[in-house]
This record gives sequence, C-alpha cells and structure tokens, in this order.
Amino acid sequence: MKLYNYFRSSASYRVRIALNLKGLDYEYVSVHLTRNGGEQFADAYRALNPQALVPVLHDGDRVLTQSLAIIEYLDETRPEPPLLPKTPAERARVRALAQTVACEIHPLNNLRVLRYLTDTLGVSEETKNKWYQHWVGLGLQAIETQLATSPYTGKFCHGDTPTLADCCLVPQLFNARRFKCDLSGFPTLLRIEQNCNALPAFQRAAPERQPDAEAPGK
Amino acid sequence: MKLYNYFRSSASYRVRIALNLKGLDYEYVSVHLTRNGGEQFADAYRALNPQALVPVLHDGDRVLTQSLAIIEYLDETRPEPPLLPKTPAERARVRALAQTVACEIHPLNNLRVLRYLTDTLGVSEETKNKWYQHWVGLGLQAIETQLATSPYTGKFCHGDTPTLADCCLVPQLFNARRFKCDLSGFPTLLRIEQNCNALPAFQRAAPERQPDAEAPGK
Repeated sequence: MKLYNYFRSSASYRVRIALNLKGLDYEYVSVHLTRNGGEQFADAYRALNPQALVPVLHDGDRVLTQSLAIIEYLDETRPEPPLLPKTPAERARVRALAQTVACEIHPLNNLRVLRYLTDTLGVSEETKNKWYQHWVGLGLQAIETQLATSPYTGKFCHGDTPTLADCCLVPQLFNARRFKCDLSGFPTLLRIEQNCNALPAFQRAAPERQPDAEAPGK
Repeated sequence: MKLYNYFRSSASYRVRIALNLKGLDYEYVSVHLTRNGGEQFADAYRALNPQALVPVLHDGDRVLTQSLAIIEYLDETRPEPPLLPKTPAERARVRALAQTVACEIHPLNNLRVLRYLTDTLGVSEETKNKWYQHWVGLGLQAIETQLATSPYTGKFCHGDTPTLADCCLVPQLFNARRFKCDLSGFPTLLRIEQNCNALPAFQRAAPERQPDAEAPGK
C-alpha cells in the first residue's frame, strides 16, 4: 500500500493512525501542500484525486479517497483489530463522533479555507485565528459534552479500545494546539488523547515523526 | 421513528431521502433554524443533540446524530433496499462521494458559517454569495470529474440504483440553485439528479413538500 499524504494534514494523520492500529505497512509518499505552489495541484496528483486533497490510499489497483471512507475500507478488508463496534447503534455513535470532527470542525479550518480568508477576503491573521478558534471551540465543546455524559465512553471515545472516533479526535486536538486554542475546558477529550498517545500506533502517526516533517511555525 | 429536522436543511433532506427509499414511516418534528432565535439552541433540543444541529433521528430509545451516520445505521438495521454496494472497494467509492459533499462542500455553506461571515466578519451579501459559489463550484467540479470518468457511474452515482452518494448529491444541488450557482458545467450531476428526482422517494423528501416549508426567499 501507498499513502499519499502530508505530515501536518489532519485527514492524513487519521489514516496513518488507522494503518498503524491495523499493523499495516505502507509506503509514505509526501504531497507537500505548500511547496511548488502545492504539489496536490500537480496534474499527476489530480489524476489520482481530482479533488486535489490528501490523503489518497493506493491498495493494489484501488485508489481510495476521503479519510473516513479509507478507514472504513481498511476496517472491512483487514478486520482486526476492529475500529468500529459491533452493534449498529454503537457504530452510529462512533461514526457520529468521527463526523463531528470531519464534517463540523475540520472543513472550516483546513489550509485552503484559511487561505481564502486571508488572500481573498483579506482578513487579518488575528481574525483568521479567531475564526479557527471559534469553530474548534464550538465543535470540541459539543464532543466533550457528548463524551462526558455517555455511558459508552471509556478509556477511549467508545469503550476501552481505539476506534474511528479516536483516529479523528487526536489529529483535531493536535491542530487545535497549533492554533493556540484553549483546551482546558475539555477534560474528557484530554484524558482520551493521553490514552491514545500512550499507544505506539498513535505515536508513530504523529506529524513530527513523518519523513516530510518540518519544524513548527514553518 | 421521529426525525427532528428542518425543511431546508441539507443534512435533514439527505436523511428524509434515505427513510423514503427504505419505505420507513416517521414522525416529522420541525426544528426551525431561524425562528425564535433558532429552535436548535433550545435547552430541550440541546439535551438531544449538544451540537445544536439537525437532523436527529429517534429510533425507539436511540438518539442518533450526524446525517451520514444515521443513514449507515438505517442501512444496517433495515437492509432493503441497500444504500451501499456489496464490495469494500465499491462501498469506499460511494462513501467518498458522499463525504466529498458532507466534508468538503456543505460545511462551508451552512447557515451558521454564512452568518459568521456576515455578522462577525462583516462581509457583504455579494462576498458571502461568492464564498458560497466558490466552494460549491470547486467541490461539484471534482465530483463531476470523478463521476464522468468512472465505469462505476450509472443511472445514479454508483450503478443503477440510488445510494448514500445520491442522498447527499441531490440536496447539495438543491442548495446550489438557491445560491444561484452555475451548474451548466456539471452534465453528469444534472443527469443523475434528474434520475433521482424521477423517484417518489426523492420527490417526497424535497424541501418544498415538508410541513414546515416556507416560500423561497424567506
């Protein structure tokens, strides 16, 4: 398998965690999102993914896009250890938590959106950062409430083994810190994050451990 | 079953289509997103969904959030007719198409984001509409390319029966027209939309057919 990805991309980070949890080897192909005008816009990459987004997973002759769809695919083709619970209601809970990150928080804060804010709308760095913090704060608060009040929450977002929801939560918290979001109001999220980051699968997926990693602030 | 939703909400519309395709009866509970300061912010509704977003599906004592998670739940608990194909690779394709709408297009254009642009950032109506058209155009162009070049595309996004991807595409096109997006460059999407809207399940889910529908422009 080949993973086209970028060390700091949150969606890439999710898939790296899943691959590691499954114990799968893969070739790391870096798609640098800011160098050369953005390598994701190159014709060869667009031929793989017309969306010009990372990650893309190559599995044999299959080209897979969208991080959540990729993780579900991995879970269906390599079922152990499972990243989704067994019952439909529990699966729905895990998917909803993952989608809260992937559909409500992250899309508002990825690189192309932040660029539109500064380059097209002409907002200041400060206003851009407030935008970031606003959507992250709102989304994480909702997840904190959902996790803190549910009997299904365990060491991880759902029970005592990591799931798709944890694959999404940890990269989002990493990003939140990059943009100096105040996370002190989210004790449940921080506890779960700590449990995740105690696992080698999460540690090895971290942005700073990737071959294309750069120093913070770059 | 009870569906807490709003006629014009795109995520609600997706779930209505899925419920209709499955032939499931449900009680329609309107959560008016702009009346009374937004009924989604009422304490009683927040107790159901701390995210203060629609839709929520009540199935017995289960409270389900996030439209894609709800549709997958429906597909697992009421398998006929299936809304996802049988093989993992094909399922991944359908999920990726659905997520392109749900993670890349729609989050940038829902009510709360458009309000932040006008009320907090103070942008003009014209700039707000350009923002909308920019993200919709970019996302739909990528889907058009993916659909037009794939042998899996049929009468619908995947083959000749409707799937989760069609449940997402049709509401997004509806929204795009509301914001006067130019759809002439997307012949494959328009052809699929026409096939979808020929089906009673899609027709009955349309915003203008819902009990809380209001005249366009309101």
